[in-house]
Formats: sequence, structure tokens, C-alpha cells
Amino acid sequence: MKTPALKTLIAVNMLLLCVNAFAQNNIRYVKAETLTLIGKAKKTDSCFQRIDSAEAAPMPMAVRSLAKQSAGIAVLFETNSTTIRAKWKLSGEVYLSNMTPIAHSGLDLYCFRNNKWQYVNVGKPAKGIDQEQRIIENMDNSTKQFMIYLPLYNSINDLQIGVEENAIIKSPAHAAVDTTLRVVVYGSSIVQGASASRPGMAYPAILQRRTGYDVINLGFSGNAKMEKELAEYLATVPADCYVLDCIPNPSPEEINERSYPFIKLLCGKKPNTPIILVETVFRENGNWDQKVGQRITRQNEEIRKTYNRLIKEGVKNIYYIETTKLIGNDHEATVDGVHLSDLGFTRIADALLPLIEQAMKKHK
Amino acid sequence: MKTPALKTLIAVNMLLLCVNAFAQNNIRYVKAETLTLIGKAKKTDSCFQRIDSAEAAPMPMAVRSLAKQSAGIAVLFETNSTTIRAKWKLSGEVYLSNMTPIAHSGLDLYCFRNNKWQYVNVGKPAKGIDQEQRIIENMDNSTKQFMIYLPLYNSINDLQIGVEENAIIKSPAHAAVDTTLRVVVYGSSIVQGASASRPGMAYPAILQRRTGYDVINLGFSGNAKMEKELAEYLATVPADCYVLDCIPNPSPEEINERSYPFIKLLCGKKPNTPIILVETVFRENGNWDQKVGQRITRQNEEIRKTYNRLIKEGVKNIYYIETTKLIGNDHEATVDGVHLSDLGFTRIADALLPLIEQAMKKHK
Repeated sequence: MKTPALKTLIAVNMLLLCVNAFAQNNIRYVKAETLTLIGKAKKTDSCFQRIDSAEAAPMPMAVRSLAKQSAGIAVLFETNSTTIRAKWKLSGEVYLSNMTPIAHSGLDLYCFRNNKWQYVNVGKPAKGIDQEQRIIENMDNSTKQFMIYLPLYNSINDLQIGVEENAIIKSPAHAAVDTTLRVVVYGSSIVQGASASRPGMAYPAILQRRTGYDVINLGFSGNAKMEKELAEYLATVPADCYVLDCIPNPSPEEINERSYPFIKLLCGKKPNTPIILVETVFRENGNWDQKVGQRITRQNEEIRKTYNRLIKEGVKNIYYIETTKLIGNDHEATVDGVHLSDLGFTRIADALLPLIEQAMKKHK
Repeated sequence: MKTPALKTLIAVNMLLLCVNAFAQNNIRYVKAETLTLIGKAKKTDSCFQRIDSAEAAPMPMAVRSLAKQSAGIAVLFETNSTTIRAKWKLSGEVYLSNMTPIAHSGLDLYCFRNNKWQYVNVGKPAKGIDQEQRIIENMDNSTKQFMIYLPLYNSINDLQIGVEENAIIKSPAHAAVDTTLRVVVYGSSIVQGASASRPGMAYPAILQRRTGYDVINLGFSGNAKMEKELAEYLATVPADCYVLDCIPNPSPEEINERSYPFIKLLCGKKPNTPIILVETVFRENGNWDQKVGQRITRQNEEIRKTYNRLIKEGVKNIYYIETTKLIGNDHEATVDGVHLSDLGFTRIADALLPLIEQAMKKHK
């Protein structure tokens, strides 16, 4: 038998359920391109790709394709909504044995609180192309500044941010990322973000949060072999500091042939912009596979030679960091011996941060 | 025109290619169950599952199913082969947005060198069920002790280790894991290993390598709700220390009802075995979603009450660790706010290690 009190409770609960369902249904979606985009080298034809198609045309085919992926791009906005949802359309289904779907195809939401960027939650991709997810709900309704990182190893054809119907959503009045201070990172899959657990843990993104600078991810998986066309492009990208972490993929012979003219071209066109040269991470299997180990040692010997030659010639504003200083010495910082886990990315960000601050300070 | 020297070089190279091809083809496979298995609570009907089917019968259906997954089980062997390959048959294809395929369905190879376990390489799963991969090659041919961790979120029906035809492969004469010192960890998806980048980075595996103890992974994703049947089973598992990290999934009410009788039952049957109680990791989205935040706070309040009650009753050998001490305070240690990345797992292992050593020392 139901008492009157119980009946009232049931009625109130049903009403609350209805209100909740109503709130769920009244979500207003806003196109992400109407908000603020950061992590972009320049404007591009399709706004969620990294290099404009016309500018990418002279580059190697693999780089042209990878430049369409959204690694390092993030959307900044402020809202007083207590719920944030997202709809995004991926260009294809991806399978990578060394990455989580959240990292290659998901979203990663941060909020600027107490003068710091703090993780909020992720947009988890389901199998398939069209995604729609609630990222967070039940927040207080104060106005906050948010940032959503886009997928690291996929392309986005459309992205919409959902908030409560009556909530404000707009570009931040005072963006917590200083887009006038720009660090441009050119590199391999590691720079692109393999194998962060989520988009915000790729090391350019960690550096961006820690410094407040706009850090541009020009990491190209399996590539970054220092072709002349890439040096020419990089020289056109507004930058206050270049990080060249492009030793993992070219052969020792390619590094010998290409690294000197590549850096000379960049220095020639941007004589006042500091450059940080990063040796390749020592692939963990190279501690066991003797052929792999020898190759890595030779790669780093070749870039060191180029650095010494540049220093001898009196090139200024060039910094160098050795492989031994990048990811610790416990051999635990990678998922597959090559690509860094969040542990490895945290360590490499710790290692690069002082160099970047030093380079930016001198440059300012 | 080819000089005689060049001709000789070509002939030698072709010969080397043939030898290499020959060596590739001459791999001898050994059934993993003929080697040494660690990380096992007890013997089981199918050797790569965690709980014997008959013993699992009274447990909740989800736990019975998860007990078939191979989390925490590893194979120990020694070989002088310069190449190690593996064939493994998975029970099914898995998609988890917060895990890498290497973690849920792959293999993770370590070698004992300079008195430490050092990462060698992983066995990357392709899509599908039947896997065959080269894990490492071109090693020197000294005899070494290896350990292969099995998949965290999949079951293995068959596992074979491949070495060169004439190489020795056998159980280690002196295993570098002391199977007489046993730590049994009961918990949720976090204990099971979500979201380590690879099987060896789940925290029970990290603790196993750091201590040399046999650490048993009884983590059950979405479960570990302290049912009586589980307490009864745990009491039958040979253990020198229990870690109860089972607060993430039961509701505050369930913790209130179940935690006291669960621990009392275990203490009653194993009065001399130390128990380490672990508060739940504070889910990162709980810093924003007020309902989630309140629930986590209440979960930890309830287990704290139980701990205080046990201490008041004079129960000895019980240790307690608070949520604030587990994964740091930068909010960066998870993939999805709940499940730990390698960064989070490294931190929680750092936090638990001194407690485990203290508990084991007193117990010895």
C-alpha cells in the first residue's frame, strides 16, 4: 500500500525525470568554427586541417594526407551551460594497435580554473563515423572558459558543441592561450601524438597548457624527413620558436644530407627565431635489437654533427637536447618501444619546457 | 660494369639474404603452458584464465566472465634465441574506446637484465582473432630470462612462443619472480589494467616487477562489489598480503552494507595476512559533475567508517591509503577521468609500494 508521502515522492521523482529528459532534449548546437581555434599554423581551406591544401601540394604525398588530420587543433569557448555535448563527424574509421580510440578519434575537454587548465572529460568515440556524446553534465552554472582538443590521428569534417538551450556560448573575451606567442613543433608520429592516451596528452598540447603559448603541432607520422619543401613551408609559418623533433624517421644518410640545408634554409629566412633541435628518442627495442640500436645511435650522431657545424659557423639561437634527457631511464615510457605513453609525454614536456622558456625569453 | 670485388659482394649479400630467410622460416614454437606461469591465484581448468570455472560458479555472472580474461598472467622462460616470436589465439575481437589494442589483446615482453626487469617490446595484435607476430630479433645469443604478460581485457585460447630452431627454450632454472611471496589485488577495472598502454603497465604488474613478488591481478571491470562469494574465494587464495582496491564500483550504500562483513570474513579466515585498503581514485569528472563528486566522497566516507570500526575492534594488520595520495594532484593521470594511464599507474604503484613492503615485512 502506498502512503500519501510515498505517492508524493513518486510524483516528484516522475516530475524530476521529465525535467531531466526535457533538459536533455533542449541542447543547442553551435558550429565549432564560429568559436576560437588555436593550434593552427595558418588559415586553411578546411578549418580542422593543419596545412592548407594548396600549400601542401608540393609536399610528399603522405605528409599531404597527414596534414588533414586535426592533431594539436583545439576550440576555445566560454559558456555558463551546466552540460557540454559534442557532435563530430570523422573522415574514417581508424585502427591503430598502439593508440586508444579516444586519442586517435576522440575529443578532450579542459577548463581554465584557478589560472590553470584542468582536465574535465573526454568525448569517447564509438565505432563508426558519426559521433554524438555528452562530455560533462551537472556542473555549476558559472561562466567558464573551455578548450576542446580534436582527434590526433583522424580528420574531422564537422564539429558542433552542444550547450543548454538558454546558455551563453561564445569565443572567450580573454583567451587563456596567447596566440601572439607561437611555438611551432615539426616532427614525427611522436609529435603528432602517438601514443598519448587522449588528445590533450600529446606533448605539444602539454606544453601549450603549461606555457599558455599557442603551440602548433606539425607532427607527421612516419614522416618529417626534412624535405626542402617542408623547410620552405615552416619558414612561412609565424613562429617565435621552432622545435625540430624530426630525427626518428629519416635514415642516418638522409639526416647527413638534409639536416644542414634544412636548418640553414630556415635560419636564413628566420634569422631571429630560435630553433630547438631534439635528438630522436632512443627506441626501446634498440636496447635489444642490435641493428635498430646502431641505427638510432647513427641518427643522433648525424644530427649532432650538423649542430656542431652550425655552431662553428656562428649560427645563434640554436638549442640542442640529447636523447638521454628526454624520457627518463627506466625504459617504461613507451607503449611499443617507439611511441610515448602519457608517462613519456609528461617526461619529454618536462625536459623541453625549460629550453622553450629560455628560447622564448631571449627572443622576446 | 661489375668489378670482381662487387660481384663477390653481391654474392655474399645474396647468401646472407638466403641465410636470413632460412633463419626466419626455422622458428620452433613451444606451448606457453609448458613454461612457467606467474600471476595465477591458483590452478585453473583452462590455464590462461584467472579463476577456475568451478570455483567461479557462485560468483556474479560478470565476474565469471571477466575471470576468463588473462589480466596479470605472465609466462616466464629462458632462451638463447636471438629472435622471439609469438602466436596467440584471442577469444574475440574487442573495441574499447579507452584502451589500446596492445593493452586489451596484445603481449608485452620483458627481460631480466642487471637484476631488473627491462621492457623489450610488445606483440601488437592485428584486427581479428589469430595473431602471429615477431616481438624482437637481432639480439645477442646469450641465455636470458624473459617474461611475457598476457592481454588485459581479452581471453587467450592458445599461446605459443617461437624461437630459433636450435635455440634452447625452457622454464627458468632460477625464476626472477618469487612465487612464494604473494600479493593478491582485488579490485575494479583499474586493477584489471584499464587503461595501461600495454599489459605490463597495469599497476599489479608494475608492483610485481619492482618487488619481485608474485602479484595476482583479481581486477574485474565494472565489478568488485564485495559480494560474500568473493570474500570466501579470496580467503582460499594463498596470499601474504591482500590489497582491496574495490571502492570504485559499489554504491555508498553497498560499501556501507558489504565492506565490514567482507573484510571480517577475510580477516577471520586469514587472521595473520595483512590487508591494505585503498580508497577509490577520485574520478576527474567528479571535480566538475557535482553528482559524481558527491558519490565519490560518500564512497570514501563509507570505507573510512569501516576501517575505523575495524581498528576500534582491534583488528591488526590493516593498512589504509587515502584517495589524495594515489595519483597526484595535476588531474592528468587518467585517460577518461576514471581509468589510469601509464602516468597514473606509475603514480599509484609509487604510492602503494611502501605500504606493501611494510605489510610484507611485518608478515614475514
